[in-house]
Amino acid sequence: MKKMIIASTSTIYGSSYLEYILPELKKFFTKVDEIVFIPYARPSGITYEAYTKIAKKAFASLNIAVKGIYEYENPNEAIKKAKGIFVGGGNTFELVNQLYANNIMETIKTVVTSGTPYFGTSAGSNICGQTMQTTNDMPIIYPPSFKTLALIPFNINPHYLDADPTSTHKGETRETRINEYHTYNTTPVLGLREGSWISVSGEQIVLKGTLTARLFQQNKEPIELTTGSLLKF
Amino acid sequence: MKKMIIASTSTIYGSSYLEYILPELKKFFTKVDEIVFIPYARPSGITYEAYTKIAKKAFASLNIAVKGIYEYENPNEAIKKAKGIFVGGGNTFELVNQLYANNIMETIKTVVTSGTPYFGTSAGSNICGQTMQTTNDMPIIYPPSFKTLALIPFNINPHYLDADPTSTHKGETRETRINEYHTYNTTPVLGLREGSWISVSGEQIVLKGTLTARLFQQNKEPIELTTGSLLKF
Repeated sequence: MKKMIIASTSTIYGSSYLEYILPELKKFFTKVDEIVFIPYARPSGITYEAYTKIAKKAFASLNIAVKGIYEYENPNEAIKKAKGIFVGGGNTFELVNQLYANNIMETIKTVVTSGTPYFGTSAGSNICGQTMQTTNDMPIIYPPSFKTLALIPFNINPHYLDADPTSTHKGETRETRINEYHTYNTTPVLGLREGSWISVSGEQIVLKGTLTARLFQQNKEPIELTTGSLLKF
Repeated sequence: MKKMIIASTSTIYGSSYLEYILPELKKFFTKVDEIVFIPYARPSGITYEAYTKIAKKAFASLNIAVKGIYEYENPNEAIKKAKGIFVGGGNTFELVNQLYANNIMETIKTVVTSGTPYFGTSAGSNICGQTMQTTNDMPIIYPPSFKTLALIPFNINPHYLDADPTSTHKGETRETRINEYHTYNTTPVLGLREGSWISVSGEQIVLKGTLTARLFQQNKEPIELTTGSLLKF
Protein backbone atom coordinates (compact mmCIF):
# COMPACT_ATOMS: atom_id res chain seq x y z
CA MET A 1 0.00 0.00 0.00
CA LYS A 2 1.38 3.39 -1.03
CA LYS A 3 2.40 5.64 1.85
CA MET A 4 3.67 9.08 0.93
CA ILE A 5 4.08 12.62 2.13
CA ILE A 6 4.50 15.04 -0.74
CA ALA A 7 5.39 18.49 0.61
CA SER A 8 5.56 21.84 -1.18
CA THR A 9 8.71 22.91 0.66
CA SER A 10 11.26 21.68 3.19
CA THR A 11 11.26 24.95 5.07
CA ILE A 12 8.70 27.59 5.83
CA TYR A 13 9.54 31.19 6.64
CA GLY A 14 10.86 31.75 10.13
CA SER A 15 11.51 28.13 11.06
CA SER A 16 14.34 25.65 10.56
CA TYR A 17 14.73 22.83 8.01
CA LEU A 18 11.68 20.48 8.14
CA GLU A 19 10.65 21.93 11.52
CA TYR A 20 7.01 22.58 10.53
CA ILE A 21 6.46 19.01 9.36
CA LEU A 22 8.41 17.04 12.00
CA PRO A 23 5.26 16.12 14.02
CA GLU A 24 3.75 14.66 10.83
CA LEU A 25 6.97 12.83 9.95
CA LYS A 26 7.09 11.33 13.43
CA LYS A 27 3.70 9.68 12.83
CA PHE A 28 4.55 8.83 9.22
CA PHE A 29 7.86 7.09 9.91
CA THR A 30 6.66 5.24 13.00
CA LYS A 31 8.60 1.96 13.34
CA VAL A 32 11.16 3.22 10.79
CA ASP A 33 14.63 3.70 12.31
CA GLU A 34 16.62 4.43 9.15
CA ILE A 35 15.84 6.10 5.81
CA VAL A 36 17.72 6.52 2.56
CA PHE A 37 18.18 10.17 1.55
CA ILE A 38 18.48 11.16 -2.10
CA PRO A 39 20.40 14.45 -2.29
CA TYR A 40 20.69 14.55 -6.11
CA ALA A 41 18.79 17.86 -6.46
CA ARG A 42 21.65 19.71 -4.69
CA PRO A 43 20.05 23.10 -3.81
CA SER A 44 22.51 25.93 -4.54
CA GLY A 45 24.94 23.27 -5.79
CA ILE A 46 25.61 21.97 -2.25
CA THR A 47 27.55 18.67 -2.10
CA TYR A 48 25.79 15.36 -1.44
CA GLU A 49 27.67 15.10 1.85
CA ALA A 50 26.72 18.56 3.11
CA TYR A 51 23.11 18.11 2.05
CA THR A 52 22.82 14.72 3.72
CA LYS A 53 24.25 16.21 6.91
CA ILE A 54 21.36 18.70 7.01
CA ALA A 55 18.83 15.89 6.58
CA LYS A 56 20.57 13.78 9.24
CA LYS A 57 20.35 16.65 11.72
CA ALA A 58 16.60 17.16 11.17
CA PHE A 59 15.77 13.46 11.49
CA ALA A 60 18.00 12.98 14.55
CA SER A 61 15.26 14.61 16.64
CA LEU A 62 12.95 11.75 15.58
CA ASN A 63 15.65 9.14 16.34
CA ILE A 64 15.73 8.19 12.68
CA ALA A 65 19.11 7.56 11.06
CA VAL A 66 19.68 9.00 7.57
CA LYS A 67 22.05 7.51 5.03
CA GLY A 68 22.83 9.25 1.74
CA ILE A 69 22.26 7.08 -1.33
CA TYR A 70 25.78 7.93 -2.54
CA GLU A 71 27.13 6.04 0.49
CA TYR A 72 25.89 2.75 -0.95
CA GLU A 73 27.84 0.81 -3.52
CA ASN A 74 24.67 -0.06 -5.43
CA PRO A 75 21.93 2.65 -5.43
CA ASN A 76 19.40 0.22 -6.86
CA GLU A 77 19.94 -2.26 -4.03
CA ALA A 78 19.84 0.59 -1.52
CA ILE A 79 16.37 1.59 -2.76
CA LYS A 80 15.14 -2.01 -2.78
CA LYS A 81 16.23 -2.53 0.83
CA ALA A 82 15.26 0.94 2.14
CA LYS A 83 12.92 1.14 5.13
CA GLY A 84 11.96 4.64 4.02
CA ILE A 85 12.97 7.12 1.32
CA PHE A 86 13.40 10.90 1.52
CA VAL A 87 14.04 12.90 -1.65
CA GLY A 88 15.10 16.46 -0.91
CA GLY A 89 14.52 19.63 -2.92
CA GLY A 90 16.83 21.58 -5.19
CA ASN A 91 16.96 21.48 -8.97
CA THR A 92 14.42 19.08 -10.48
CA PHE A 93 16.27 18.77 -13.82
CA GLU A 94 19.43 17.54 -12.12
CA LEU A 95 17.43 15.31 -9.75
CA VAL A 96 15.63 13.62 -12.64
CA ASN A 97 18.86 13.40 -14.60
CA GLN A 98 20.57 11.55 -11.74
CA LEU A 99 17.59 9.27 -11.06
CA TYR A 100 17.87 8.11 -14.68
CA ALA A 101 21.69 8.02 -14.66
CA ASN A 102 21.62 5.81 -11.56
CA ASN A 103 18.81 3.77 -13.04
CA ILE A 104 16.57 4.05 -9.97
CA MET A 105 13.47 5.86 -11.27
CA GLU A 106 11.61 2.58 -11.88
CA THR A 107 12.93 1.00 -8.69
CA ILE A 108 11.63 3.83 -6.53
CA LYS A 109 8.26 3.58 -8.25
CA THR A 110 8.13 -0.16 -7.61
CA VAL A 111 9.08 -0.10 -3.93
CA VAL A 112 6.86 2.87 -3.08
CA THR A 113 3.93 1.19 -4.82
CA SER A 114 4.66 -1.86 -2.65
CA GLY A 115 4.64 0.19 0.55
CA THR A 116 8.07 1.70 1.26
CA PRO A 117 7.23 5.07 2.89
CA TYR A 118 8.25 8.01 0.69
CA PHE A 119 8.75 11.60 1.79
CA GLY A 120 9.48 14.31 -0.75
CA THR A 121 9.94 18.07 -0.55
CA SER A 122 9.88 20.51 -3.47
CA ALA A 123 11.82 18.79 -6.32
CA GLY A 124 11.34 15.53 -4.41
CA SER A 125 7.59 16.18 -4.61
CA ASN A 126 7.62 17.31 -8.22
CA ILE A 127 8.85 13.90 -9.31
CA CYS A 128 5.87 12.15 -7.67
CA GLY A 129 3.67 13.49 -10.47
CA GLN A 130 3.25 12.17 -13.98
CA THR A 131 6.03 14.42 -15.29
CA MET A 132 8.38 17.13 -14.02
CA GLN A 133 6.87 19.58 -16.49
CA THR A 134 5.37 21.87 -13.86
CA THR A 135 8.60 22.49 -11.96
CA ASN A 136 9.67 26.08 -11.32
CA ASP A 137 13.33 25.21 -11.77
CA MET A 138 15.81 26.31 -14.39
CA PRO A 139 16.75 23.73 -17.04
CA ILE A 140 20.42 23.71 -16.02
CA ILE A 141 20.82 20.09 -17.16
CA TYR A 142 19.16 18.20 -20.05
CA PRO A 143 17.63 15.03 -18.57
CA PRO A 144 16.90 12.04 -20.83
CA SER A 145 13.15 12.45 -20.22
CA PHE A 146 10.67 14.64 -18.33
CA LYS A 147 8.71 11.56 -17.22
CA THR A 148 8.83 10.93 -13.49
CA LEU A 149 7.45 8.52 -10.89
CA ALA A 150 3.76 8.91 -11.76
CA LEU A 151 2.82 7.76 -8.24
CA ILE A 152 -0.11 10.21 -8.21
CA PRO A 153 -2.50 10.85 -11.11
CA PHE A 154 -1.63 14.56 -11.46
CA ASN A 155 1.33 16.93 -11.50
CA ILE A 156 2.63 19.09 -8.67
CA ASN A 157 3.63 22.73 -8.78
CA PRO A 158 5.49 23.21 -5.49
CA HIS A 159 6.10 26.60 -3.85
CA TYR A 160 2.90 27.75 -5.54
CA LEU A 161 2.75 31.54 -5.60
CA ASP A 162 -0.26 33.74 -6.20
CA ALA A 163 0.24 36.62 -8.60
CA ASP A 164 1.10 39.88 -6.86
CA PRO A 165 -1.54 42.39 -8.02
CA THR A 166 0.81 45.30 -7.27
CA SER A 167 3.70 43.93 -9.33
CA THR A 168 5.04 45.90 -12.29
CA HIS A 169 7.03 42.90 -13.55
CA LYS A 170 5.92 41.62 -16.96
CA GLY A 171 7.32 38.08 -16.73
CA GLU A 172 4.69 35.34 -16.67
CA THR A 173 2.83 34.64 -13.43
CA ARG A 174 2.75 31.08 -12.08
CA GLU A 175 -0.88 30.74 -13.16
CA THR A 176 -0.02 31.84 -16.71
CA ARG A 177 2.77 29.27 -16.87
CA ILE A 178 0.48 26.45 -15.71
CA ASN A 179 -2.17 27.54 -18.21
CA GLU A 180 0.50 27.39 -20.93
CA TYR A 181 1.25 23.83 -19.76
CA HIS A 182 -2.42 23.00 -20.38
CA THR A 183 -2.18 24.28 -23.95
CA TYR A 184 -0.18 21.13 -24.72
CA ASN A 185 -0.95 18.70 -21.86
CA THR A 186 -4.05 17.25 -20.17
CA THR A 187 -2.65 16.19 -16.77
CA PRO A 188 -4.20 18.18 -13.88
CA VAL A 189 -1.78 20.34 -11.87
CA LEU A 190 -1.97 21.02 -8.15
CA GLY A 191 -0.42 24.30 -7.05
CA LEU A 192 0.81 23.47 -3.55
CA ARG A 193 1.59 26.49 -1.36
CA GLU A 194 4.49 26.46 1.10
CA GLY A 195 3.36 24.73 4.28
CA SER A 196 0.91 22.42 2.47
CA TRP A 197 1.50 18.77 1.77
CA ILE A 198 -0.28 15.77 0.32
CA SER A 199 -0.79 12.61 2.30
CA VAL A 200 -1.07 9.44 0.22
CA SER A 201 -2.37 6.27 1.82
CA GLY A 202 -3.08 3.59 -0.75
CA GLU A 203 -5.33 5.22 -3.32
CA GLN A 204 -6.53 7.90 -0.88
CA ILE A 205 -4.85 11.25 -1.49
CA VAL A 206 -5.59 14.12 0.91
CA LEU A 207 -4.53 17.77 1.09
CA LYS A 208 -2.92 18.64 4.43
CA GLY A 209 -1.63 21.74 6.21
CA THR A 210 -3.52 24.93 6.97
CA LEU A 211 -3.70 26.46 3.49
CA THR A 212 -5.84 25.90 0.41
CA ALA A 213 -4.26 24.53 -2.77
CA ARG A 214 -5.02 25.65 -6.33
CA LEU A 215 -6.14 23.01 -8.81
CA PHE A 216 -5.67 23.58 -12.54
CA GLN A 217 -7.43 21.38 -15.09
CA GLN A 218 -7.38 21.76 -18.85
CA ASN A 219 -10.22 23.90 -20.21
CA LYS A 220 -11.60 24.62 -16.72
CA GLU A 221 -11.37 27.57 -14.36
CA PRO A 222 -8.84 26.87 -11.58
CA ILE A 223 -10.37 26.12 -8.19
CA GLU A 224 -9.22 26.42 -4.57
CA LEU A 225 -9.31 23.19 -2.60
CA THR A 226 -9.62 23.39 1.17
CA THR A 227 -7.32 21.44 3.45
CA GLY A 228 -8.65 17.95 4.10
CA SER A 229 -9.95 17.68 0.52
CA LEU A 230 -9.74 14.31 -1.15
CA LEU A 231 -7.64 14.77 -4.28
CA LYS A 232 -9.67 12.80 -6.78
CA PHE A 233 -10.06 14.28 -10.24
CA MET B 1 27.88 41.39 -40.33
CA LYS B 2 25.64 40.42 -37.42
CA LYS B 3 22.95 42.95 -36.59
CA MET B 4 20.75 42.12 -33.62
CA ILE B 5 18.57 43.60 -30.91
CA ILE B 6 18.15 41.20 -28.00
CA ALA B 7 15.55 42.57 -25.59
CA SER B 8 14.61 41.40 -22.10
CA THR B 9 10.90 41.94 -22.70
CA SER B 10 8.40 43.01 -25.35
CA THR B 11 6.47 45.18 -22.96
CA ILE B 12 7.36 47.33 -19.98
CA TYR B 13 4.92 48.24 -17.26
CA GLY B 14 2.44 50.95 -18.21
CA SER B 15 3.07 50.96 -21.95
CA SER B 16 1.84 49.00 -24.95
CA TYR B 17 3.46 46.10 -26.83
CA LEU B 18 6.98 47.09 -28.03
CA GLU B 19 6.19 50.79 -27.39
CA TYR B 20 9.36 51.46 -25.36
CA ILE B 21 11.65 50.10 -28.05
CA LEU B 22 9.95 51.39 -31.22
CA PRO B 23 12.37 54.34 -31.63
CA GLU B 24 15.27 51.87 -31.54
CA LEU B 25 13.55 49.49 -33.95
CA LYS B 26 12.95 52.35 -36.36
CA LYS B 27 16.72 52.94 -36.60
CA PHE B 28 17.48 49.21 -36.57
CA PHE B 29 15.13 48.22 -39.39
CA THR B 30 15.93 51.21 -41.57
CA LYS B 31 15.48 50.25 -45.25
CA VAL B 32 13.60 47.08 -44.20
CA ASP B 33 9.96 47.14 -45.32
CA GLU B 34 8.97 43.59 -44.35
CA ILE B 35 10.00 41.14 -41.64
CA VAL B 36 9.25 37.51 -40.87
CA PHE B 37 7.70 36.98 -37.44
CA ILE B 38 8.18 33.71 -35.55
CA PRO B 39 5.25 33.25 -33.15
CA TYR B 40 6.18 29.71 -32.02
CA ALA B 41 6.58 30.66 -28.33
CA ARG B 42 2.80 31.37 -28.09
CA PRO B 43 2.53 33.33 -24.81
CA SER B 44 -0.51 32.10 -22.81
CA GLY B 45 -1.12 29.60 -25.62
CA ILE B 46 -2.27 32.31 -28.05
CA THR B 47 -2.64 31.17 -31.70
CA TYR B 48 0.02 31.98 -34.30
CA GLU B 49 -2.55 34.12 -36.11
CA ALA B 50 -3.53 36.18 -33.06
CA TYR B 51 0.10 36.64 -32.01
CA THR B 52 1.17 37.74 -35.46
CA LYS B 53 -1.67 40.26 -35.52
CA ILE B 54 -0.23 41.89 -32.38
CA ALA B 55 3.23 42.09 -33.98
CA LYS B 56 1.74 43.48 -37.23
CA LYS B 57 -0.02 46.25 -35.31
CA ALA B 58 3.14 47.33 -33.49
CA PHE B 59 5.27 47.39 -36.66
CA ALA B 60 2.59 49.17 -38.69
CA SER B 61 3.59 52.42 -36.97
CA LEU B 62 7.07 51.97 -38.51
CA ASN B 63 5.59 51.16 -41.93
CA ILE B 64 7.07 47.69 -41.74
CA ALA B 65 4.95 44.75 -42.89
CA VAL B 66 4.99 41.60 -40.75
CA LYS B 67 4.36 38.12 -42.10
CA GLY B 68 4.03 35.11 -39.80
CA ILE B 69 6.37 32.24 -40.67
CA TYR B 70 3.40 29.87 -40.65
CA GLU B 71 2.04 31.78 -43.67
CA TYR B 72 4.90 30.49 -45.82
CA GLU B 73 4.83 27.08 -47.44
CA ASN B 74 8.50 26.49 -46.65
CA PRO B 75 9.75 28.02 -43.35
CA ASN B 76 13.36 27.40 -44.30
CA GLU B 77 13.01 29.35 -47.55
CA ALA B 78 11.14 32.08 -45.67
CA ILE B 79 14.10 32.54 -43.33
CA LYS B 80 16.61 32.46 -46.17
CA LYS B 81 14.75 35.20 -48.04
CA ALA B 82 13.75 37.28 -44.99
CA LYS B 83 14.72 40.96 -44.96
CA GLY B 84 14.48 40.88 -41.17
CA ILE B 85 13.47 38.41 -38.44
CA PHE B 86 11.50 38.99 -35.25
CA VAL B 87 11.15 36.17 -32.71
CA GLY B 88 8.55 36.96 -30.05
CA GLY B 89 8.38 35.85 -26.41
CA GLY B 90 6.34 33.17 -24.71
CA ASN B 91 7.46 29.68 -23.75
CA THR B 92 11.09 29.00 -24.65
CA PHE B 93 10.69 25.19 -24.54
CA GLU B 94 7.95 25.25 -27.17
CA LEU B 95 9.82 27.86 -29.22
CA VAL B 96 12.97 25.73 -29.31
CA ASN B 97 10.92 22.62 -29.98
CA GLN B 98 9.29 24.23 -33.03
CA LEU B 99 12.56 25.70 -34.34
CA TYR B 100 13.93 22.15 -34.40
CA ALA B 101 10.68 20.61 -35.69
CA ASN B 102 10.66 23.09 -38.58
CA ASN B 103 14.36 22.60 -39.09
CA ILE B 104 15.19 26.32 -39.03
CA MET B 105 17.54 26.68 -36.04
CA GLU B 106 20.65 26.38 -38.22
CA THR B 107 19.16 28.47 -41.01
CA ILE B 108 18.43 31.38 -38.67
CA LYS B 109 21.98 31.17 -37.31
CA THR B 110 23.40 31.22 -40.84
CA VAL B 111 21.38 34.15 -42.17
CA VAL B 112 21.83 36.28 -39.03
CA THR B 113 25.57 35.64 -39.10
CA SER B 114 25.49 36.83 -42.72
CA GLY B 115 23.68 40.05 -41.82
CA THR B 116 19.89 39.50 -41.76
CA PRO B 117 18.72 41.84 -38.95
CA TYR B 118 17.35 39.89 -35.96
CA PHE B 119 15.11 41.22 -33.22
CA GLY B 120 14.18 39.04 -30.25
CA THR B 121 12.21 39.61 -27.07
CA SER B 122 12.19 37.37 -23.99
CA ALA B 123 12.11 33.76 -25.31
CA GLY B 124 13.26 35.18 -28.67
CA SER B 125 16.27 36.62 -26.83
CA ASN B 126 16.93 33.53 -24.75
CA ILE B 127 17.60 31.54 -27.91
CA CYS B 128 20.34 33.95 -29.01
CA GLY B 129 22.57 32.52 -26.27
CA GLN B 130 24.58 29.32 -26.29
CA THR B 131 21.70 27.36 -24.77
CA MET B 132 18.17 27.97 -23.46
CA GLN B 133 19.26 26.73 -20.04
CA THR B 134 18.77 30.06 -18.28
CA THR B 135 15.17 30.56 -19.31
CA ASN B 136 12.58 31.24 -16.60
CA ASP B 137 9.94 29.20 -18.41
CA MET B 138 8.20 26.01 -17.42
CA PRO B 139 9.28 22.85 -19.29
CA ILE B 140 5.82 22.28 -20.76
CA ILE B 141 7.31 20.53 -23.82
CA TYR B 142 10.43 18.32 -24.13
CA PRO B 143 12.56 19.79 -26.93
CA PRO B 144 15.12 17.60 -28.74
CA SER B 145 17.96 19.74 -27.35
CA PHE B 146 18.59 22.78 -25.14
CA LYS B 147 21.20 24.11 -27.63
CA THR B 148 20.16 27.32 -29.32
CA LEU B 149 21.49 29.86 -31.84
CA ALA B 150 24.77 30.65 -30.05
CA LEU B 151 24.93 34.00 -31.82
CA ILE B 152 26.42 35.59 -28.69
CA PRO B 153 29.14 34.04 -26.50
CA PHE B 154 26.99 33.94 -23.34
CA ASN B 155 23.49 33.07 -22.13
CA ILE B 156 20.60 35.41 -21.43
CA ASN B 157 18.31 35.46 -18.44
CA PRO B 158 15.48 37.74 -19.57
CA HIS B 159 13.05 39.49 -17.19
CA TYR B 160 15.86 39.43 -14.64
CA LEU B 161 14.47 40.03 -11.16
CA ASP B 162 16.36 41.05 -8.04
CA ALA B 163 15.49 39.12 -4.90
CA ASP B 164 12.89 40.84 -2.76
CA PRO B 165 14.51 41.24 0.69
CA THR B 166 11.06 41.41 2.34
CA SER B 167 9.80 38.16 0.79
CA THR B 168 8.78 35.25 3.02
CA HIS B 169 8.71 32.86 0.03
CA LYS B 170 11.26 30.06 0.25
CA GLY B 171 11.43 29.15 -3.45
CA GLU B 172 14.79 29.84 -5.11
CA THR B 173 15.63 33.42 -6.10
CA ARG B 174 16.70 34.11 -9.66
CA GLU B 175 20.30 34.58 -8.50
CA THR B 176 20.24 31.19 -6.73
CA ARG B 177 18.96 29.52 -9.90
CA ILE B 178 21.69 31.07 -12.04
CA ASN B 179 24.31 30.06 -9.49
CA GLU B 180 22.96 26.49 -9.66
CA TYR B 181 23.40 26.70 -13.45
CA HIS B 182 27.06 27.51 -12.85
CA THR B 183 27.47 24.40 -10.72
CA TYR B 184 27.27 22.42 -13.97
CA ASN B 185 28.02 24.93 -16.75
CA THR B 186 30.73 27.48 -17.57
CA THR B 187 28.88 29.82 -19.96
CA PRO B 188 28.50 33.36 -18.53
CA VAL B 189 24.90 34.52 -17.97
CA LEU B 190 23.62 38.05 -18.40
CA GLY B 191 20.60 38.92 -16.24
CA LEU B 192 18.77 41.44 -18.43
CA ARG B 193 16.18 43.55 -16.61
CA GLU B 194 12.92 44.57 -18.27
CA GLY B 195 13.59 47.66 -20.39
CA SER B 196 17.20 46.65 -21.17
CA TRP B 197 18.41 45.24 -24.45
CA ILE B 198 21.61 44.20 -26.14
CA SER B 199 22.70 45.70 -29.41
CA VAL B 200 24.90 43.46 -31.56
CA SER B 201 26.80 44.96 -34.47
CA GLY B 202 29.30 42.52 -35.90
CA GLU B 203 31.41 41.38 -32.98
CA GLN B 204 30.55 44.46 -30.89
CA ILE B 205 27.95 43.73 -28.22
CA VAL B 206 26.65 46.64 -26.11
CA LEU B 207 24.19 46.90 -23.22
CA LYS B 208 21.40 49.41 -23.94
CA GLY B 209 18.47 50.95 -22.07
CA THR B 210 18.54 52.89 -18.82
CA LEU B 211 19.18 50.06 -16.37
CA THR B 212 22.22 48.07 -15.29
CA ALA B 213 22.45 44.36 -16.07
CA ARG B 214 23.77 41.62 -13.78
CA LEU B 215 26.58 39.45 -15.06
CA PHE B 216 27.12 35.98 -13.60
CA GLN B 217 30.33 34.07 -14.26
CA GLN B 218 31.34 30.72 -12.85
CA ASN B 219 33.32 30.99 -9.60
CA LYS B 220 33.10 34.78 -9.56
CA GLU B 221 30.96 37.25 -7.68
CA PRO B 222 28.20 38.63 -9.91
CA ILE B 223 28.73 42.20 -11.11
CA GLU B 224 26.49 45.03 -12.25
CA LEU B 225 27.26 46.35 -15.72
CA THR B 226 26.25 49.91 -16.56
CA THR B 227 24.35 50.73 -19.71
CA GLY B 228 26.71 51.34 -22.62
CA SER B 229 29.06 48.59 -21.39
CA LEU B 230 30.78 46.48 -23.99
CA LEU B 231 29.79 42.88 -23.32
CA LYS B 232 33.14 41.16 -23.71
CA PHE B 233 33.92 38.34 -21.27
